[in-house]
Amino acid sequence: MANDQPLTKEAILDAAAQVLRRYGPEKTSVVDVAKVLQVSHGTLYRHFPSKAALREAVTERWLLHISDSLQLIADQTQGSAQERLHLWFVTLISIKRTFRKEDPEMFSMYANVTLESVEIIQHHVNYLISQLAQIIEAGVKAAEFHTEATDVTAKAVFLATSRFHHPAHAREWSSATSEQEFENVWQLILTGLK
Amino acid sequence: MANDQPLTKEAILDAAAQVLRRYGPEKTSVVDVAKVLQVSHGTLYRHFPSKAALREAVTERWLLHISDSLQLIADQTQGSAQERLHLWFVTLISIKRTFRKEDPEMFSMYANVTLESVEIIQHHVNYLISQLAQIIEAGVKAAEFHTEATDVTAKAVFLATSRFHHPAHAREWSSATSEQEFENVWQLILTGLK
Repeated sequence: MANDQPLTKEAILDAAAQVLRRYGPEKTSVVDVAKVLQVSHGTLYRHFPSKAALREAVTERWLLHISDSLQLIADQTQGSAQERLHLWFVTLISIKRTFRKEDPEMFSMYANVTLESVEIIQHHVNYLISQLAQIIEAGVKAAEFHTEATDVTAKAVFLATSRFHHPAHAREWSSATSEQEFENVWQLILTGLK
Repeated sequence: MANDQPLTKEAILDAAAQVLRRYGPEKTSVVDVAKVLQVSHGTLYRHFPSKAALREAVTERWLLHISDSLQLIADQTQGSAQERLHLWFVTLISIKRTFRKEDPEMFSMYANVTLESVEIIQHHVNYLISQLAQIIEAGVKAAEFHTEATDVTAKAVFLATSRFHHPAHAREWSSATSEQEFENVWQLILTGLK
Protein backbone atom coordinates (compact mmCIF):
# COMPACT_ATOMS: atom_id res chain seq x y z
CA MET A 1 0.00 0.00 0.00
CA ALA A 2 1.36 3.45 -0.90
CA ASN A 3 1.86 5.73 2.08
CA ASP A 4 -0.07 8.63 0.51
CA GLN A 5 -3.39 6.86 1.13
CA PRO A 6 -5.18 7.71 4.37
CA LEU A 7 -4.47 5.13 7.06
CA THR A 8 -7.92 3.82 7.93
CA LYS A 9 -8.58 1.25 10.63
CA GLU A 10 -9.80 -1.10 7.88
CA ALA A 11 -6.55 -0.73 5.93
CA ILE A 12 -4.54 -1.52 9.07
CA LEU A 13 -6.64 -4.57 9.83
CA ASP A 14 -6.37 -5.81 6.24
CA ALA A 15 -2.59 -5.52 6.42
CA ALA A 16 -2.52 -7.10 9.89
CA ALA A 17 -4.62 -10.06 8.69
CA GLN A 18 -2.30 -10.49 5.73
CA VAL A 19 0.84 -10.46 7.91
CA LEU A 20 -0.70 -12.68 10.60
CA ARG A 21 -1.60 -15.19 7.93
CA ARG A 22 1.94 -15.09 6.49
CA TYR A 23 4.03 -15.24 9.70
CA GLY A 24 1.55 -16.71 12.16
CA PRO A 25 0.13 -15.02 15.29
CA GLU A 26 3.20 -15.72 17.44
CA LYS A 27 5.77 -14.17 15.11
CA THR A 28 3.79 -11.20 13.80
CA SER A 29 4.75 -7.88 15.39
CA VAL A 30 3.28 -4.40 15.08
CA VAL A 31 6.52 -3.47 13.26
CA ASP A 32 5.84 -6.09 10.53
CA VAL A 33 2.45 -4.57 9.87
CA ALA A 34 3.91 -1.04 9.77
CA LYS A 35 6.37 -2.24 7.11
CA VAL A 36 3.62 -3.62 4.89
CA LEU A 37 1.72 -0.35 5.23
CA GLN A 38 4.89 1.68 4.72
CA VAL A 39 4.21 3.81 7.76
CA SER A 40 6.31 4.52 10.86
CA HIS A 41 6.04 2.17 13.83
CA GLY A 42 4.86 5.11 15.91
CA THR A 43 1.88 5.69 13.64
CA LEU A 44 0.76 2.12 14.05
CA TYR A 45 1.47 1.94 17.79
CA ARG A 46 -0.88 4.87 18.22
CA HIS A 47 -3.69 2.66 16.87
CA PHE A 48 -2.55 -0.67 18.29
CA PRO A 49 -0.28 -0.47 21.33
CA SER A 50 0.64 -4.16 21.29
CA LYS A 51 0.69 -7.40 19.34
CA ALA A 52 -2.22 -8.56 21.48
CA ALA A 53 -4.25 -5.47 20.58
CA LEU A 54 -3.64 -6.17 16.89
CA ARG A 55 -4.73 -9.79 17.21
CA GLU A 56 -7.82 -8.79 19.15
CA ALA A 57 -8.82 -6.18 16.58
CA VAL A 58 -8.47 -8.65 13.69
CA THR A 59 -10.48 -11.24 15.63
CA GLU A 60 -13.11 -8.68 16.60
CA ARG A 61 -13.60 -7.72 12.96
CA TRP A 62 -13.96 -11.35 11.98
CA LEU A 63 -16.52 -11.93 14.75
CA LEU A 64 -18.48 -8.89 13.62
CA HIS A 65 -18.50 -10.25 10.08
CA ILE A 66 -20.06 -13.49 11.40
CA SER A 67 -22.63 -11.82 13.59
CA ASP A 68 -23.66 -9.31 10.89
CA SER A 69 -24.27 -12.19 8.44
CA LEU A 70 -26.39 -13.95 11.05
CA GLN A 71 -28.36 -10.79 11.81
CA LEU A 72 -29.63 -10.93 8.21
CA ILE A 73 -31.16 -14.33 8.98
CA ALA A 74 -32.71 -13.10 12.23
CA ASP A 75 -34.23 -10.17 10.31
CA GLN A 76 -35.97 -12.38 7.74
CA THR A 77 -39.74 -12.32 7.87
CA GLN A 78 -40.75 -15.02 5.39
CA GLY A 79 -41.01 -18.67 6.48
CA SER A 80 -41.45 -19.99 10.02
CA ALA A 81 -39.37 -19.04 13.07
CA GLN A 82 -38.45 -22.69 13.37
CA GLU A 83 -36.89 -22.71 9.86
CA ARG A 84 -35.13 -19.42 10.61
CA LEU A 85 -33.70 -20.71 13.88
CA HIS A 86 -32.43 -23.86 12.19
CA LEU A 87 -30.90 -21.86 9.32
CA TRP A 88 -29.25 -19.52 11.84
CA PHE A 89 -27.50 -22.43 13.57
CA VAL A 90 -26.58 -24.28 10.40
CA THR A 91 -25.05 -21.05 9.04
CA LEU A 92 -23.09 -20.32 12.24
CA ILE A 93 -21.77 -23.89 12.33
CA SER A 94 -20.87 -23.85 8.66
CA ILE A 95 -19.01 -20.50 8.91
CA LYS A 96 -16.93 -21.82 11.83
CA ARG A 97 -16.09 -25.13 10.14
CA THR A 98 -15.16 -23.48 6.84
CA PHE A 99 -12.98 -20.94 8.64
CA ARG A 100 -11.18 -23.68 10.55
CA LYS A 101 -10.62 -25.76 7.43
CA GLU A 102 -9.60 -23.03 5.02
CA ASP A 103 -7.74 -20.67 7.31
CA PRO A 104 -6.33 -22.82 10.15
CA GLU A 105 -3.70 -20.25 11.31
CA MET A 106 -6.29 -17.52 11.75
CA PHE A 107 -8.77 -19.92 13.29
CA SER A 108 -6.25 -20.94 15.90
CA MET A 109 -5.60 -17.26 16.68
CA TYR A 110 -9.32 -16.69 17.04
CA ALA A 111 -9.63 -19.72 19.33
CA ASN A 112 -6.88 -18.30 21.55
CA VAL A 113 -8.38 -14.84 21.67
CA THR A 114 -11.64 -16.52 22.66
CA LEU A 115 -9.91 -17.84 25.77
CA GLU A 116 -8.10 -14.63 26.65
CA SER A 117 -10.22 -11.66 25.63
CA VAL A 118 -13.29 -12.25 27.72
CA GLU A 119 -14.82 -8.85 26.96
CA ILE A 120 -14.69 -9.14 23.14
CA ILE A 121 -16.18 -12.62 23.24
CA GLN A 122 -18.86 -11.65 25.75
CA HIS A 123 -19.91 -8.80 23.50
CA HIS A 124 -20.03 -11.13 20.48
CA VAL A 125 -21.96 -13.83 22.32
CA ASN A 126 -24.47 -11.30 23.67
CA TYR A 127 -25.06 -10.04 20.12
CA LEU A 128 -25.66 -13.61 18.89
CA ILE A 129 -28.01 -14.39 21.78
CA SER A 130 -30.01 -11.21 21.04
CA GLN A 131 -30.52 -12.54 17.48
CA LEU A 132 -31.75 -15.87 18.84
CA ALA A 133 -34.09 -13.97 21.17
CA GLN A 134 -35.40 -12.02 18.16
CA ILE A 135 -36.19 -15.25 16.26
CA ILE A 136 -37.72 -16.96 19.30
CA GLU A 137 -39.80 -13.85 20.07
CA ALA A 138 -41.16 -13.95 16.51
CA GLY A 139 -41.93 -17.65 17.00
CA VAL A 140 -43.80 -16.94 20.24
CA LYS A 141 -45.85 -14.23 18.51
CA ALA A 142 -46.71 -16.69 15.71
CA ALA A 143 -47.68 -19.28 18.36
CA GLU A 144 -44.96 -21.61 17.03
CA PHE A 145 -42.95 -21.53 20.24
CA HIS A 146 -43.98 -21.34 23.87
CA THR A 147 -41.63 -19.85 26.41
CA GLU A 148 -42.01 -17.48 29.33
CA ALA A 149 -38.67 -15.66 29.20
CA THR A 150 -37.37 -15.23 25.66
CA ASP A 151 -33.93 -13.98 26.74
CA VAL A 152 -33.31 -16.86 29.14
CA THR A 153 -34.45 -19.38 26.53
CA ALA A 154 -32.29 -17.79 23.82
CA LYS A 155 -29.22 -18.11 26.04
CA ALA A 156 -30.10 -21.69 26.96
CA VAL A 157 -30.46 -22.62 23.28
CA PHE A 158 -27.08 -21.03 22.54
CA LEU A 159 -25.37 -22.84 25.42
CA ALA A 160 -27.00 -26.18 24.59
CA THR A 161 -25.41 -26.02 21.14
CA SER A 162 -21.91 -24.98 22.35
CA ARG A 163 -20.52 -28.31 21.24
CA PHE A 164 -21.13 -27.38 17.62
CA HIS A 165 -19.91 -23.77 17.51
CA HIS A 166 -17.59 -23.11 20.46
CA PRO A 167 -13.98 -23.24 19.18
CA ALA A 168 -12.92 -25.34 22.19
CA HIS A 169 -14.73 -28.22 20.45
CA ALA A 170 -13.13 -27.65 17.03
CA ARG A 171 -11.38 -31.04 17.11
CA GLU A 172 -14.71 -32.79 17.49
CA TRP A 173 -16.23 -31.02 14.48
CA SER A 174 -14.40 -33.18 11.98
CA SER A 175 -16.09 -36.31 13.34
CA ALA A 176 -18.25 -38.01 10.70
CA THR A 177 -21.22 -37.99 13.08
CA SER A 178 -21.04 -34.32 14.05
CA GLU A 179 -23.71 -33.14 11.62
CA GLN A 180 -26.19 -35.83 12.71
CA GLU A 181 -25.37 -35.06 16.35
CA PHE A 182 -26.33 -31.45 15.83
CA GLU A 183 -29.62 -32.48 14.25
CA ASN A 184 -30.40 -34.68 17.25
CA VAL A 185 -29.67 -31.89 19.72
CA TRP A 186 -31.71 -29.55 17.52
CA GLN A 187 -34.72 -31.91 17.65
CA LEU A 188 -34.45 -32.04 21.45
CA ILE A 189 -34.30 -28.23 21.69
CA LEU A 190 -37.09 -27.76 19.17
CA THR A 191 -39.38 -30.07 21.12
CA GLY A 192 -38.51 -28.02 24.20
CA LEU A 193 -39.46 -24.78 22.42
CA LYS A 194 -42.77 -25.93 21.00
CA MET B 1 6.14 -48.91 49.68
CA ALA B 2 8.23 -51.93 50.62
CA ASN B 3 9.28 -54.05 47.64
CA ASP B 4 8.15 -57.32 49.24
CA GLN B 5 4.51 -56.44 48.56
CA PRO B 6 3.00 -57.73 45.30
CA LEU B 7 3.07 -55.07 42.59
CA THR B 8 -0.59 -54.68 41.69
CA LYS B 9 -1.85 -52.34 38.98
CA GLU B 10 -3.66 -50.39 41.69
CA ALA B 11 -0.41 -49.93 43.66
CA ILE B 12 1.36 -48.66 40.54
CA LEU B 13 -1.43 -46.23 39.75
CA ASP B 14 -1.51 -44.96 43.34
CA ALA B 15 2.23 -44.30 43.17
CA ALA B 16 1.92 -42.75 39.71
CA ALA B 17 -0.85 -40.42 40.87
CA GLN B 18 1.26 -39.42 43.87
CA VAL B 19 4.33 -38.66 41.71
CA LEU B 20 2.29 -36.91 39.02
CA ARG B 21 0.78 -34.70 41.69
CA ARG B 22 4.22 -33.90 43.14
CA TYR B 23 6.22 -33.22 39.96
CA GLY B 24 3.48 -32.43 37.45
CA PRO B 25 2.55 -34.43 34.33
CA GLU B 26 5.36 -32.98 32.20
CA LYS B 27 8.21 -33.84 34.55
CA THR B 28 7.03 -37.20 35.84
CA SER B 29 8.80 -40.17 34.26
CA VAL B 30 8.26 -43.91 34.58
CA VAL B 31 11.60 -44.00 36.43
CA ASP B 32 10.29 -41.63 39.13
CA VAL B 33 7.37 -43.95 39.77
CA ALA B 34 9.68 -46.99 39.88
CA LYS B 35 11.74 -45.21 42.56
CA VAL B 36 8.71 -44.56 44.77
CA LEU B 37 7.69 -48.21 44.42
CA GLN B 38 11.28 -49.39 44.97
CA VAL B 39 11.17 -51.63 41.93
CA SER B 40 13.39 -51.78 38.85
CA HIS B 41 12.58 -49.58 35.88
CA GLY B 42 12.16 -52.71 33.79
CA THR B 43 9.41 -54.04 36.04
CA LEU B 44 7.45 -50.84 35.62
CA TYR B 45 8.09 -50.49 31.88
CA ARG B 46 6.57 -53.94 31.44
CA HIS B 47 3.28 -52.50 32.79
CA PHE B 48 3.56 -48.99 31.35
CA PRO B 49 5.84 -48.65 28.33
CA SER B 50 5.80 -44.82 28.36
CA LYS B 51 5.03 -41.68 30.28
CA ALA B 52 1.93 -41.28 28.12
CA ALA B 53 0.74 -44.80 29.03
CA LEU B 54 1.11 -43.95 32.71
CA ARG B 55 -0.83 -40.72 32.37
CA GLU B 56 -3.57 -42.47 30.42
CA ALA B 57 -3.90 -45.24 32.97
CA VAL B 58 -4.20 -42.77 35.86
CA THR B 59 -6.79 -40.77 33.92
CA GLU B 60 -8.68 -43.90 32.93
CA ARG B 61 -8.92 -44.96 36.56
CA TRP B 62 -10.19 -41.55 37.53
CA LEU B 63 -12.81 -41.61 34.76
CA LEU B 64 -13.95 -45.04 35.89
CA HIS B 65 -14.32 -43.73 39.42
CA ILE B 66 -16.64 -40.99 38.10
CA SER B 67 -18.70 -43.26 35.89
CA ASP B 68 -19.08 -45.93 38.58
CA SER B 69 -20.39 -43.30 41.02
CA LEU B 70 -22.88 -42.12 38.41
CA GLN B 71 -24.00 -45.66 37.66
CA LEU B 72 -25.27 -45.84 41.25
CA ILE B 73 -27.60 -42.93 40.48
CA ALA B 74 -28.78 -44.52 37.21
CA ASP B 75 -29.53 -47.73 39.14
CA GLN B 76 -31.75 -46.03 41.72
CA THR B 77 -35.41 -47.01 41.56
CA GLN B 78 -37.06 -44.65 44.04
CA GLY B 79 -38.22 -41.19 42.95
CA SER B 80 -38.97 -39.99 39.42
CA ALA B 81 -36.71 -40.42 36.37
CA GLN B 82 -36.70 -36.63 36.06
CA GLU B 83 -35.23 -36.24 39.56
CA ARG B 84 -32.70 -38.99 38.84
CA LEU B 85 -31.63 -37.39 35.57
CA HIS B 86 -31.19 -34.03 37.26
CA LEU B 87 -29.22 -35.58 40.13
CA TRP B 88 -27.03 -37.44 37.61
CA PHE B 89 -26.04 -34.18 35.89
CA VAL B 90 -25.64 -32.17 39.07
CA THR B 91 -23.36 -34.90 40.43
CA LEU B 92 -21.27 -35.12 37.24
CA ILE B 93 -20.88 -31.34 37.14
CA SER B 94 -20.01 -31.15 40.82
CA ILE B 95 -17.37 -33.94 40.57
CA LYS B 96 -15.67 -32.16 37.66
CA ARG B 97 -15.69 -28.75 39.35
CA THR B 98 -14.40 -30.10 42.65
CA PHE B 99 -11.63 -32.01 40.88
CA ARG B 100 -10.56 -28.91 38.97
CA LYS B 101 -10.57 -26.76 42.09
CA GLU B 102 -8.91 -29.14 44.52
CA ASP B 103 -6.51 -30.96 42.23
CA PRO B 104 -5.67 -28.53 39.39
CA GLU B 105 -2.47 -30.35 38.24
CA MET B 106 -4.30 -33.64 37.81
CA PHE B 107 -7.29 -31.95 36.25
CA SER B 108 -5.10 -30.34 33.63
CA MET B 109 -3.54 -33.72 32.87
CA TYR B 110 -7.01 -35.21 32.50
CA ALA B 111 -8.06 -32.36 30.18
CA ASN B 112 -5.02 -33.05 27.98
CA VAL B 113 -5.61 -36.79 27.87
CA THR B 114 -9.19 -35.96 26.87
CA LEU B 115 -7.83 -34.26 23.76
CA GLU B 116 -5.28 -36.91 22.88
CA SER B 117 -6.60 -40.32 23.89
CA VAL B 118 -9.71 -40.50 21.81
CA GLU B 119 -10.37 -44.17 22.56
CA ILE B 120 -10.31 -43.87 26.37
CA ILE B 121 -12.62 -40.88 26.27
CA GLN B 122 -14.96 -42.47 23.75
CA HIS B 123 -15.29 -45.49 26.00
CA HIS B 124 -15.99 -43.28 29.02
CA VAL B 125 -18.53 -41.13 27.16
CA ASN B 126 -20.33 -44.20 25.82
CA TYR B 127 -20.60 -45.56 29.36
CA LEU B 128 -22.07 -42.27 30.58
CA ILE B 129 -24.53 -42.10 27.67
CA SER B 130 -25.68 -45.66 28.42
CA GLN B 131 -26.51 -44.51 31.96
CA LEU B 132 -28.52 -41.60 30.61
CA ALA B 133 -30.32 -44.01 28.28
CA GLN B 134 -31.11 -46.22 31.28
CA ILE B 135 -32.68 -43.30 33.18
CA ILE B 136 -34.58 -42.01 30.13
CA GLU B 137 -35.82 -45.54 29.37
CA ALA B 138 -37.19 -45.78 32.92
CA GLY B 139 -38.83 -42.39 32.41
CA VAL B 140 -40.46 -43.54 29.19
CA LYS B 141 -41.79 -46.67 30.92
CA ALA B 142 -43.23 -44.53 33.71
CA ALA B 143 -44.80 -42.24 31.04
CA GLU B 144 -42.76 -39.31 32.38
CA PHE B 145 -40.77 -38.88 29.17
CA HIS B 146 -41.72 -39.33 25.55
CA THR B 147 -39.06 -40.19 23.02
CA GLU B 148 -38.83 -42.59 20.10
CA ALA B 149 -35.15 -43.50 20.24
CA THR B 150 -33.79 -43.59 23.78
CA ASP B 151 -30.15 -43.95 22.71
CA VAL B 152 -30.26 -41.01 20.31
CA THR B 153 -31.99 -38.86 22.92
CA ALA B 154 -29.50 -39.87 25.62
CA LYS B 155 -26.60 -38.79 23.43
CA ALA B 156 -28.35 -35.52 22.49
CA VAL B 157 -28.94 -34.73 26.18
CA PHE B 158 -25.28 -35.44 26.92
CA LEU B 159 -24.05 -33.25 24.05
CA ALA B 160 -26.46 -30.44 24.88
CA THR B 161 -24.89 -30.18 28.35
CA SER B 162 -21.24 -30.32 27.14
CA ARG B 163 -20.71 -26.75 28.26
CA PHE B 164 -21.09 -27.81 31.88
CA HIS B 165 -19.03 -31.01 32.00
CA HIS B 166 -16.59 -31.07 29.04
CA PRO B 167 -13.15 -30.04 30.33
CA ALA B 168 -12.63 -27.73 27.32
CA HIS B 169 -15.10 -25.40 29.06
CA ALA B 170 -13.43 -25.55 32.48
CA ARG B 171 -12.58 -21.83 32.42
CA GLU B 172 -16.24 -20.97 32.02
CA TRP B 173 -17.28 -23.07 35.01
CA SER B 174 -16.03 -20.52 37.53
CA SER B 175 -18.45 -17.90 36.16
CA ALA B 176 -20.96 -16.79 38.80
CA THR B 177 -23.83 -17.55 36.41
CA SER B 178 -22.75 -21.05 35.41
CA GLU B 179 -25.05 -22.86 37.85
CA GLN B 180 -28.10 -20.88 36.75
CA GLU B 181 -27.11 -21.42 33.11
CA PHE B 182 -27.14 -25.16 33.63
CA GLU B 183 -30.59 -24.98 35.22
CA ASN B 184 -31.89 -23.02 32.20
CA VAL B 185 -30.48 -25.55 29.74
CA TRP B 186 -31.87 -28.31 31.94
CA GLN B 187 -35.39 -26.78 31.79
CA LEU B 188 -35.16 -26.60 27.99
CA ILE B 189 -34.04 -30.24 27.74
CA LEU B 190 -36.63 -31.40 30.27
CA THR B 191 -39.43 -29.74 28.29
CA GLY B 192 -38.07 -31.51 25.21
CA LEU B 193 -38.19 -34.87 27.00
CA LYS B 194 -41.68 -34.58 28.44
